[in-house]
Amino acid sequence: MLHLGPFAAARYLPAGSRLGPLCLAGNRGSFARSWPLAGDRGPLPRQVRAAADGERLPVLKTPKGTRDHAPAQAALRERLLSAVVSCFKRHGAAAIDTPVLELREMLVGKYGEGAKLIYELQDQGGELLALRYDLTVPFARYLAMNKITKMKRYHVAKVYRRDNPATTRGRYREFYQCDFDIAGQFDPMIPDAECLKIVHEILSDLQLGDFVIKVNDRRILNGVFAVCGVPDSQFIPACCTVDKLDKVPWEEVRSEMVGEKGLSPEAADRIGEYVQLHGGLDLIEQLLQDPKLSQNKEAKEGLGDMKLLFEYLTLFGITGKISFDLSLARGLDYYTGVIFEAVLLQQENEHVEEPLGVGSVAGGGRYDGLVGMFDAKGRKVPCVGVSIGIERIFSILEQRLEASGEKLRTTETQVLVATPQKNLLAARMKLISELWDAGIKAEMLYKKDPKLLKQLQYCEDTGIPLAAIVGEQELADGVVKLRDVATRKEVDIPREKLIDEIRRRLEP
Amino acid sequence: MLHLGPFAAARYLPAGSRLGPLCLAGNRGSFARSWPLAGDRGPLPRQVRAAADGERLPVLKTPKGTRDHAPAQAALRERLLSAVVSCFKRHGAAAIDTPVLELREMLVGKYGEGAKLIYELQDQGGELLALRYDLTVPFARYLAMNKITKMKRYHVAKVYRRDNPATTRGRYREFYQCDFDIAGQFDPMIPDAECLKIVHEILSDLQLGDFVIKVNDRRILNGVFAVCGVPDSQFIPACCTVDKLDKVPWEEVRSEMVGEKGLSPEAADRIGEYVQLHGGLDLIEQLLQDPKLSQNKEAKEGLGDMKLLFEYLTLFGITGKISFDLSLARGLDYYTGVIFEAVLLQQENEHVEEPLGVGSVAGGGRYDGLVGMFDAKGRKVPCVGVSIGIERIFSILEQRLEASGEKLRTTETQVLVATPQKNLLAARMKLISELWDAGIKAEMLYKKDPKLLKQLQYCEDTGIPLAAIVGEQELADGVVKLRDVATRKEVDIPREKLIDEIRRRLEP
Repeated sequence: MLHLGPFAAARYLPAGSRLGPLCLAGNRGSFARSWPLAGDRGPLPRQVRAAADGERLPVLKTPKGTRDHAPAQAALRERLLSAVVSCFKRHGAAAIDTPVLELREMLVGKYGEGAKLIYELQDQGGELLALRYDLTVPFARYLAMNKITKMKRYHVAKVYRRDNPATTRGRYREFYQCDFDIAGQFDPMIPDAECLKIVHEILSDLQLGDFVIKVNDRRILNGVFAVCGVPDSQFIPACCTVDKLDKVPWEEVRSEMVGEKGLSPEAADRIGEYVQLHGGLDLIEQLLQDPKLSQNKEAKEGLGDMKLLFEYLTLFGITGKISFDLSLARGLDYYTGVIFEAVLLQQENEHVEEPLGVGSVAGGGRYDGLVGMFDAKGRKVPCVGVSIGIERIFSILEQRLEASGEKLRTTETQVLVATPQKNLLAARMKLISELWDAGIKAEMLYKKDPKLLKQLQYCEDTGIPLAAIVGEQELADGVVKLRDVATRKEVDIPREKLIDEIRRRLEP
Repeated sequence: MLHLGPFAAARYLPAGSRLGPLCLAGNRGSFARSWPLAGDRGPLPRQVRAAADGERLPVLKTPKGTRDHAPAQAALRERLLSAVVSCFKRHGAAAIDTPVLELREMLVGKYGEGAKLIYELQDQGGELLALRYDLTVPFARYLAMNKITKMKRYHVAKVYRRDNPATTRGRYREFYQCDFDIAGQFDPMIPDAECLKIVHEILSDLQLGDFVIKVNDRRILNGVFAVCGVPDSQFIPACCTVDKLDKVPWEEVRSEMVGEKGLSPEAADRIGEYVQLHGGLDLIEQLLQDPKLSQNKEAKEGLGDMKLLFEYLTLFGITGKISFDLSLARGLDYYTGVIFEAVLLQQENEHVEEPLGVGSVAGGGRYDGLVGMFDAKGRKVPCVGVSIGIERIFSILEQRLEASGEKLRTTETQVLVATPQKNLLAARMKLISELWDAGIKAEMLYKKDPKLLKQLQYCEDTGIPLAAIVGEQELADGVVKLRDVATRKEVDIPREKLIDEIRRRLEP
């Protein structure tokens, strides 16, 4: 549900020297189609350049808003995702997977203003398709399709949004979501509390610095709008406007309410008094006594559940990081109850361009009506879930890694099989084959006669801890010289004991 | 590069009762667009049905040729992928990731007849995009873009092909590829041999039954075509035709060559004499002496390298599963040297619909020209790689699991926190919170007052091995009752020793 990440795609833009005649002559047809004309969609994209011969040539790049992951990034991401997934598993979730493609009509009417950001596939005959926009709607579709009424699942996968980078400051168009959701009719606030516990555990584990988890409830917001005189039909637009309060001051939000959304100035002012409140149990109690709100059925339900939620969060020992914040609204149409969002209070790294407090790294909430939208008879399956803002967290960890100068290993190779003289390729191949068959992670250089120094240098460059060296003498003696790359100590090991010795050395 | 998998998407088709008014009134506009008219693209799709009120209603389904993975399938797939990835890591590969989306022109001219199966995105302004068709072309694009001349990488991800299910017998349109590739200028056949070793290791590890790895070389095929009188321009079409030899008899292949491809009957007959040959070192030696082939430069190079490859495979101890097979051609345009394909000889399960010997489960080859197609100056980076046909293997394992009646656990929960009396939710929440914080995988039912029997039943249903029970007596005594779900033995453990005791019990 989150969509964050300042990691600049631009770093992969190729230098001018890479321009060149990429496509074959036979493809000129589709070529011509590939270049949009300058017009109301903005200036010519950067990759359109006139080459010396007057032809337009493509630049080697990934699509706008997407990026490759080099091995170091892929290794860091693997670590990060595995930390998140292990928390989801700790809470008993099962994995599911759904296609990246969905029928277009499945996504219709679920995302409010987000709908215009959906990637649609060309009609090539057959069904009309789109790329998934999040993992929540496919989950709801999955539940309805399989008539599942109870499930705790996680799903880590890529989602797609045609966000305009010019207006959204570095958001990606392809990004991972890491979602944990609990579907089913249960006693109130127990699953909701667990979702918040999960956010707390993950952010604590990852040591991202201090954070706060803002919590609110759509029913409380609806109650606020109602008692402030906003008509029902304006609740969702008003929600979207309030949602901007974490980025712009109240005055701007107020003027959007009065201007664009057409609320009366008095209604806006009354809303302003509520949505600028935040606190804990004391604030909940105060609002439960509020003469207007306490008369509103929705608000009263929401506040009652909020009180219960705080009780459970106290048992989990995490209220220190929770703030009941009436300005939290969240943009998606489908929320119906508790909503929450975790924000980093201090950026780890000063180079981050965004101001303090915009570091939203997790979010979620209750969506009791979504599954019912997919069911013929409208049968509801109440759901609550959380999405970890993995792109933002990834970029923080990446910056931290860069700052530390530490080099992440991108391979797990334990042993390099090396030879010190010429004409020993066969000996290397026989030995490495034995190691592979014993489950040992081993490499050798793909040269017939590599220099020993080059082989040892490769170990140091890539962090391989051991070298197994077979020379003429070792072959004659039936041994292998096992070298500790860090200490440079070498010991002759009888060939038949080599695998055991390697295993012993690699024990943690 | 492989694309196999008989696992029927149809199992997720919903029953008729699930039809219903899914979309909201506000979306009628896009609704109307969603239904293709009957025409030359075939009859109306199944999901278009007239409802009682005369409106057309969508059926809940995933797009044609795609499927969801339920928890049991996701768990099985996770196991399978982790076995494959651990082999790739054993051979020292680093992971990379590339976007699912590529600029359309990157995919142009790389896939021969496959190009018509590329999914294109709608032009919504900006760049023209397509879904990746395989992981090999994005890898080549990545190398060229970053000017990388040497790399050993693996990539496990989904790819997309608009294959026509009617003609391709159950192939998926969204499927995983598991690729391992070695890029760089190295001594001949050393990386190529490692790719075959990897296929051998993975198929042996997974215990899929007996298999053979067919090997050939595009240069040998080109030599065969040349000496049989096929013009250069017909090599690739001739390759595609020969490639069908594993599915149809020679007579049919011959008639396609003469009919569709316009070869002379004499040329076809001469080709037939070669492409029906298969064997080992002896056949290589025989062809090296062949009066016509030995005069062809390409064939001679290919046969010389094939001999070297067999030498290396002998050192790896895997020639017993290798067959030099001149009928192997592989369909993709980009191969330039060694090509190979692993085939299961016996189906594990009689219910598999396809005939014996069609069980292709891995494939790959050398593509020395592909990276150069992306480079402005045409600089080549020689590459060789292998793709594991994970969908086919997955369906075999799934059928085997079904046949065994074994139930795969879909969660990893170690402890259920339970209470035997009412009004103990707080005790459960406190205890489970302690377990989570200690890294123990724990669940509780989301009910205020669940019956003990229901809680224990949940353990049995989902395979949770331990129950930690806190009742009034246990709370008073400062203990927790730890129950072994399988043996039903219960022991009181002092609260402060509980975590250690659980860890001890869960040790492997």
